[in-house]
Amino acid sequence: MIAGVLGGMGPAATAEFYAKLIARTVAERDQDHLRVAIWADPTVPDRVAAVLDGSTDPYPALLAGAEKLRDLGASVLAVPCHTAHFFLPRLAADSGVPFVDMVAETADFLAGRTGPVGLLGTRGTIAAGLYQRRVPEVEWVVPSEAGQREVDAAVAAVKRGDLAAGAAHFDRALAEVDVPLSVLACTELPLVAGNATGVLDPTDLLADAVIRRCGGKPVDARPSA
Amino acid sequence: MIAGVLGGMGPAATAEFYAKLIARTVAERDQDHLRVAIWADPTVPDRVAAVLDGSTDPYPALLAGAEKLRDLGASVLAVPCHTAHFFLPRLAADSGVPFVDMVAETADFLAGRTGPVGLLGTRGTIAAGLYQRRVPEVEWVVPSEAGQREVDAAVAAVKRGDLAAGAAHFDRALAEVDVPLSVLACTELPLVAGNATGVLDPTDLLADAVIRRCGGKPVDARPSA
Repeated sequence: MIAGVLGGMGPAATAEFYAKLIARTVAERDQDHLRVAIWADPTVPDRVAAVLDGSTDPYPALLAGAEKLRDLGASVLAVPCHTAHFFLPRLAADSGVPFVDMVAETADFLAGRTGPVGLLGTRGTIAAGLYQRRVPEVEWVVPSEAGQREVDAAVAAVKRGDLAAGAAHFDRALAEVDVPLSVLACTELPLVAGNATGVLDPTDLLADAVIRRCGGKPVDARPSA
Repeated sequence: MIAGVLGGMGPAATAEFYAKLIARTVAERDQDHLRVAIWADPTVPDRVAAVLDGSTDPYPALLAGAEKLRDLGASVLAVPCHTAHFFLPRLAADSGVPFVDMVAETADFLAGRTGPVGLLGTRGTIAAGLYQRRVPEVEWVVPSEAGQREVDAAVAAVKRGDLAAGAAHFDRALAEVDVPLSVLACTELPLVAGNATGVLDPTDLLADAVIRRCGGKPVDARPSA
């Protein structure tokens, strides 16, 4: 069983996700770990613009990546990019390979919860309503325009490799939503969230789901919420 | 141009190498980064035993991985595993894809150097003479049996995810060779070397060589030696 990772969006988030897949697998030796194939194409056109105004079209590149992973033998795929989840149903149908859905995993985790939950993600993820439609029971708190600018700046800082600047922007964004729990709904954010409390990292849930799906055993370290 | 990474030996070392490829690329945005394909198969039979006594044969699995990456479009390959470099000439010939050779990059870096240089690697890498044959001008200092046991324990600790134990074993191994410069000739060791001084990490050199080969620009952070 081979897990395919459709990545590169961004590359650092993909590397972090792969490291997480490894760190969250119970293993004594190399051979206990998953067989993983990663296709990391950072040249995929902007996903956020595609969702917001259709001015870009990442779909052909996303499908080509999924097909490459399928042809290489991957029997389940994961995309460590929230905004790209907008295209997930179509990608699964067109590629013929099932995806582990990070938004669905997070929805399962949040089941039964009510009250305010912060949503820190790209403008594309928020506009697409990926989380709001899937988990309508909670009161989603999105940043103000000033707060969203901090999220955008944190994401951009990670993409240019400036984690210190990213962490400062992230801290301000998190403080701005000011709720007990916030979802890190962009895969760049875990790279600058440090040990912030009151955050839920969906890539932890995605990693655990991929590990289970491939017959591995995730470590006993469920995120708290 | 797609860089292929033949990885999984071990998986954490591969994740670290991919993170390094990203961190060492001058980039303002996703699209400045390399397109990378990674085939990480941790079930490849033990490379060390293969070199030491021929009791395992990782070659078919290594070649299958190289061929998968080739078929996926990779035009240059890198293997973040020193011991696997034993098989590099054969792999390049059989797969028809050129490899960036981490040992050769390190040899270039050490050119002109004389005097003692520590060699911390697996028993397979040391027995194969990968570094000793390529850089005969320096006086290679290999650990004593007790020191090698610390290296072995450091590597095993990384493979089971215990970085704290790995760091303690590494520190003792490094202290034992007791020379001004030591080569981290196993890709698990950079994960536990911390900020140790007097070490050269060949994966830095491999990453920079891959970045240049694919038309990217490495950051100006050459290791010192």
